Amino acid sequence: MIVVMKQGASQAQIAHVTERIKEMGLTPHVSQGQFRTVIGAIGEEAVAKQEMLRQIEGVEQVLQIMKPYKLCSREFHAEDTVIDIRGIKIGGTHCAVIGGPCTIEDLDMLQTIAKAVKKAGARILRGGAFKPRTSPYAFQGLGKQGLQMLCDVGKSLDMATITEVMDPRDVDLVAQHADILQIGARNMQNYNLLREVGQTNKPVMLKRGLAASIKEWLMSAEYIMSGGNHQVILCERGIRTFETETRFTLDISCIPVARIDSHLPVYVDPSHAAGRRDLIESMALAAIAAGAHGVMVEVHHCPDKALCDGPQALLPEQFQRLMDQIRQVAPVVGKTVE
Amino acid sequence: MIVVMKQGASQAQIAHVTERIKEMGLTPHVSQGQFRTVIGAIGEEAVAKQEMLRQIEGVEQVLQIMKPYKLCSREFHAEDTVIDIRGIKIGGTHCAVIGGPCTIEDLDMLQTIAKAVKKAGARILRGGAFKPRTSPYAFQGLGKQGLQMLCDVGKSLDMATITEVMDPRDVDLVAQHADILQIGARNMQNYNLLREVGQTNKPVMLKRGLAASIKEWLMSAEYIMSGGNHQVILCERGIRTFETETRFTLDISCIPVARIDSHLPVYVDPSHAAGRRDLIESMALAAIAAGAHGVMVEVHHCPDKALCDGPQALLPEQFQRLMDQIRQVAPVVGKTVE
Amino acid sequence: MIVVMKQGASQAQIAHVTERIKEMGLTPHVSQGQFRTVIGAIGEEAVAKQEMLRQIEGVEQVLQIMKPYKLCSREFHAEDTVIDIRGIKIGGTHCAVIGGPCTIEDLDMLQTIAKAVKKAGARILRGGAFKPRTSPYAFQGLGKQGLQMLCDVGKSLDMATITEVMDPRDVDLVAQHADILQIGARNMQNYNLLREVGQTNKPVMLKRGLAASIKEWLMSAEYIMSGGNHQVILCERGIRTFETETRFTLDISCIPVARIDSHLPVYVDPSHAAGRRDLIESMALAAIAAGAHGVMVEVHHCPDKALCDGPQALLPEQFQRLMDQIRQVAPVVGKTVE
Amino acid sequence: MIVVMKQGASQAQIAHVTERIKEMGLTPHVSQGQFRTVIGAIGEEAVAKQEMLRQIEGVEQVLQIMKPYKLCSREFHAEDTVIDIRGIKIGGTHCAVIGGPCTIEDLDMLQTIAKAVKKAGARILRGGAFKPRTSPYAFQGLGKQGLQMLCDVGKSLDMATITEVMDPRDVDLVAQHADILQIGARNMQNYNLLREVGQTNKPVMLKRGLAASIKEWLMSAEYIMSGGNHQVILCERGIRTFETETRFTLDISCIPVARIDSHLPVYVDPSHAAGRRDLIESMALAAIAAGAHGVMVEVHHCPDKALCDGPQALLPEQFQRLMDQIRQVAPVVGKTVE
Repeated sequence: MIVVMKQGASQAQIAHVTERIKEMGLTPHVSQGQFRTVIGAIGEEAVAKQEMLRQIEGVEQVLQIMKPYKLCSREFHAEDTVIDIRGIKIGGTHCAVIGGPCTIEDLDMLQTIAKAVKKAGARILRGGAFKPRTSPYAFQGLGKQGLQMLCDVGKSLDMATITEVMDPRDVDLVAQHADILQIGARNMQNYNLLREVGQTNKPVMLKRGLAASIKEWLMSAEYIMSGGNHQVILCERGIRTFETETRFTLDISCIPVARIDSHLPVYVDPSHAAGRRDLIESMALAAIAAGAHGVMVEVHHCPDKALCDGPQALLPEQFQRLMDQIRQVAPVVGKTVE
Repeated sequence: MIVVMKQGASQAQIAHVTERIKEMGLTPHVSQGQFRTVIGAIGEEAVAKQEMLRQIEGVEQVLQIMKPYKLCSREFHAEDTVIDIRGIKIGGTHCAVIGGPCTIEDLDMLQTIAKAVKKAGARILRGGAFKPRTSPYAFQGLGKQGLQMLCDVGKSLDMATITEVMDPRDVDLVAQHADILQIGARNMQNYNLLREVGQTNKPVMLKRGLAASIKEWLMSAEYIMSGGNHQVILCERGIRTFETETRFTLDISCIPVARIDSHLPVYVDPSHAAGRRDLIESMALAAIAAGAHGVMVEVHHCPDKALCDGPQALLPEQFQRLMDQIRQVAPVVGKTVE
Repeated sequence: MIVVMKQGASQAQIAHVTERIKEMGLTPHVSQGQFRTVIGAIGEEAVAKQEMLRQIEGVEQVLQIMKPYKLCSREFHAEDTVIDIRGIKIGGTHCAVIGGPCTIEDLDMLQTIAKAVKKAGARILRGGAFKPRTSPYAFQGLGKQGLQMLCDVGKSLDMATITEVMDPRDVDLVAQHADILQIGARNMQNYNLLREVGQTNKPVMLKRGLAASIKEWLMSAEYIMSGGNHQVILCERGIRTFETETRFTLDISCIPVARIDSHLPVYVDPSHAAGRRDLIESMALAAIAAGAHGVMVEVHHCPDKALCDGPQALLPEQFQRLMDQIRQVAPVVGKTVE
Repeated sequence: MIVVMKQGASQAQIAHVTERIKEMGLTPHVSQGQFRTVIGAIGEEAVAKQEMLRQIEGVEQVLQIMKPYKLCSREFHAEDTVIDIRGIKIGGTHCAVIGGPCTIEDLDMLQTIAKAVKKAGARILRGGAFKPRTSPYAFQGLGKQGLQMLCDVGKSLDMATITEVMDPRDVDLVAQHADILQIGARNMQNYNLLREVGQTNKPVMLKRGLAASIKEWLMSAEYIMSGGNHQVILCERGIRTFETETRFTLDISCIPVARIDSHLPVYVDPSHAAGRRDLIESMALAAIAAGAHGVMVEVHHCPDKALCDGPQALLPEQFQRLMDQIRQVAPVVGKTVE
């Protein structure tokens, strides 16, 4: 931690800061510049300590040198994390695609779509049972009944399954039915929910919040991991910017940044980022080319009648075409689609 | 709802859209322009209908004409909502200031600060018992014990109290101890939590999410109100932008916008928006001048030792000075500090 | 400047950085932390030096300690700058309002509006002769003819005048006709234009770019001042964010931030920020309450027929009402409307 | 154009709008909804007309149906524009990479880098002679002397050349020396400069402004094209968001959006977007996978000593590796590197 004093800070102020740094169990290291005094504080950094130093009279700014997270950082764990779900590998040199409907509407539609997704080569099935909807008057998902359908279809087709959990009270129920628990973008900083999924033994896909910095996203992964569950998958799904042609702006550079700073697998959800079908293929290929370990894509055989987010779902034949292209791009960046 | 067809859309496509509009129980109204055909859909608008129309072949865009919320809109309820907590009025021509520490650390500090806040003229006491912290390693609040302290101090000084609730499982507990339930910015779209507080009979202060549009903020108010609880207070606390001098960017214009579109009281929290003490006075006065019904300000008698967010807390004498200025600005815009 | 080395940086890398720091004429100051080595570089900081250090192998980040600007900073010049235009004072404890039409359409309309503006108590007249329009097919202003009208009306009513200059080739012409040269938001980093106005002896109002940080805004002021012209007025007019209810988001906190960091006068243009008339009053009062030295407001007696930006212009009677309110709010924050 | 009246708008207000629409030479088309009246205005849309209608009493909003640009739109010109510079093709199914130093420092360095770039397979050479620098105290480029070096090196290696022009007074000079004129992001709405380059017969690369929407970017292309010069190349270089890990946020989705809406070639500049070398490869490959017609990459053989932007330049061997990967990814999306 580095404390930069204001121009003209008094000797008494400098002494006070030095004193407080010692009280915190850190070693101060004063360096007198031409215009400003800078004080290094050597030892275990903590957010709370930084905040306390920041408010002392005469202090201009406090710069953090250490990263605020540990378990998820590559400095702590150099090798890529690879998660294994009954032989399906997520992370490292593996590229595994997730496909399926936004929302489970009934058993029939789920089976139809799951078969198409599997045929195209994806081995993980998505499907929403609990849906976060901005309007209280919109369809909210089939709940427990939907979970059972997802579980049944997944088993019958030998696919891994993923679905969102929104309420800490539902974590056990969802963990009994799905292979991967998804935390939605709007819940990325719902800390009580993060703590609950951190106590399960199921992999967790953590979507990036729509206004979350990469640092905050990794801090939320740290929340889950600090509970003992180290199987976290990061998923970028677009951030909020001024551009209105797309629903959100896919932050493609966050893929290499997250992979440099962390050992966790990084996915991309182009469907929610775009909000329109005609951009999905370009965005999914870009994600793979940028180094993502996979994409999660919405597929619907009849989007015209989907109860939710139809306009952004690919048709089965479009998904097939995308899988074929992914198989060609992935090896250029050192990954294999299995 | 208005459906704009693509340039060169076929007659069959136009007929298909017209058909779907009728199936939805709406009346279509076709208007042939020079380059494009536009189809009005008259009747009850719904988000789901808009989404379905958007994905039909030949459709370029679907424009919503009606607002997506009702209960919180001024069209539905023309008069300002005024909330009454044992004689303390929130909304309308009343200006009521909230002050107190970010986090309750112990009974002593809470009493000291509460007395200073009351003496300056504020009648509502804030204090955090459950704290949402970005780091799992930071102090998380005193929990139930803190709630009891807040309740006791509020009663002994005859102040109304407000504190945050983060978990649907804690709503009853918090509602038993505090007069106003606060939903934090990070939980603005935690729909299960919104539903729970919508079933209590306590006023709810709903903070705007850091990437939430004003429309989405009002939609979240609608969630709470649709459960039967119409006592919602909106609170702006800064949105996320590219500017880094302040922690967030206070969106001052959202005050008149929210007041034009909704009848609910609008508050501003300058402390969290700024993240630094030296801006609070200017921002709080600006909020009152822009028409806010009050501000919520962090106060600490010894910020140097605060366990959380000390750098943004006002000292008691600074808070007193701010109250004096608020008393002068409020009447210029038709409000009274009681 | 502080160079933070990567965790595990080698002794050779540290030595290389130290060497380069010496070559730059700075004094290195190595501090070995538990996990990282930090190297202070004492002496004259420069952006170029920071960039060079940042790219050396083993360097994680280079932190700037000094502000990148000088002439416009309060550290360099502690007292508020007050600009005097024939007795009209801008800055310090003075609050001077600017009013007038967005665009000069003809002599008659300019006279009518100017009289109304003056009657309400504003002493500075705005009016556009060269208009930056996003569409090449929109009305682009009357040019030189408009300048002459502005000059004539200003003289006849004894008002100071302000108008925008967009092209380095027009700077002399505009400086001959107007009292204040305005640099538009879209030209805030048009460096050749900044250099030209820096060589005139006319006050320059520098609008903040729609995506410019406060630091960059001050850097642009520094460009002008480095040419010898120290009469710069800063003007906030809204930044671009995700919110769409207003055309831009007025960054109210930039007023106290700019006033803490700089001695230059700070203005606010609520008309362009809002883009709608019904928000102007609230935003203008908020600006004054936040410490702005004045506001610049569009006024039109017949906005229904304005050739440009009519929807955001106040009617003369609305402007009068606003002036009355400003006269009440300004003294609360230590300013006088003259 | 569609005019949506406020709920409860009077018959007189509706009649007034209808009247104004007729005066504008458009045909009104009134449609009475359950809650609101909507009035279509059929005929030639214009921004000015929309603004005028928006300010009439009783009007809630005016929706534009037509795109505000013509010449650059795919509706106007269905086929991809392909620009030919002495046999080097830009646009369509061609993928042509641009490489070179950020700034021309001397003839030697330019030759060294140009040879490496050409050897790797790029046929277009970039190099800055006039540099827009945020600080007035930073190196501003070699000016005319630099232009001559670029011209000479380009000719000797049979490469096309591109360089930035910042001042309308320099357009002729730059057009005499370079094959492609570059308009920088900060000048995207410097309309006088756009008009000048629109009157040359040289291809123009138009960088997207850091806060410009895709619509505004296309409007600026329209400015250039409306002067008669139809050879415009769009170039995305990152937009400003809240994320600070990268200098800007590369908006990858703008590539398919711009290609759907316009026939112009679309490029990406990953160097300026990232601001750090370790992300360039991922971002450049993502751009090609998303459908870009090429990338513009900074290359420097000795970035440690570059006078400008060294940290974001690739080393020659890294550029070679990138070219090899681009050759593999381009064909997957239907493009050929020549």
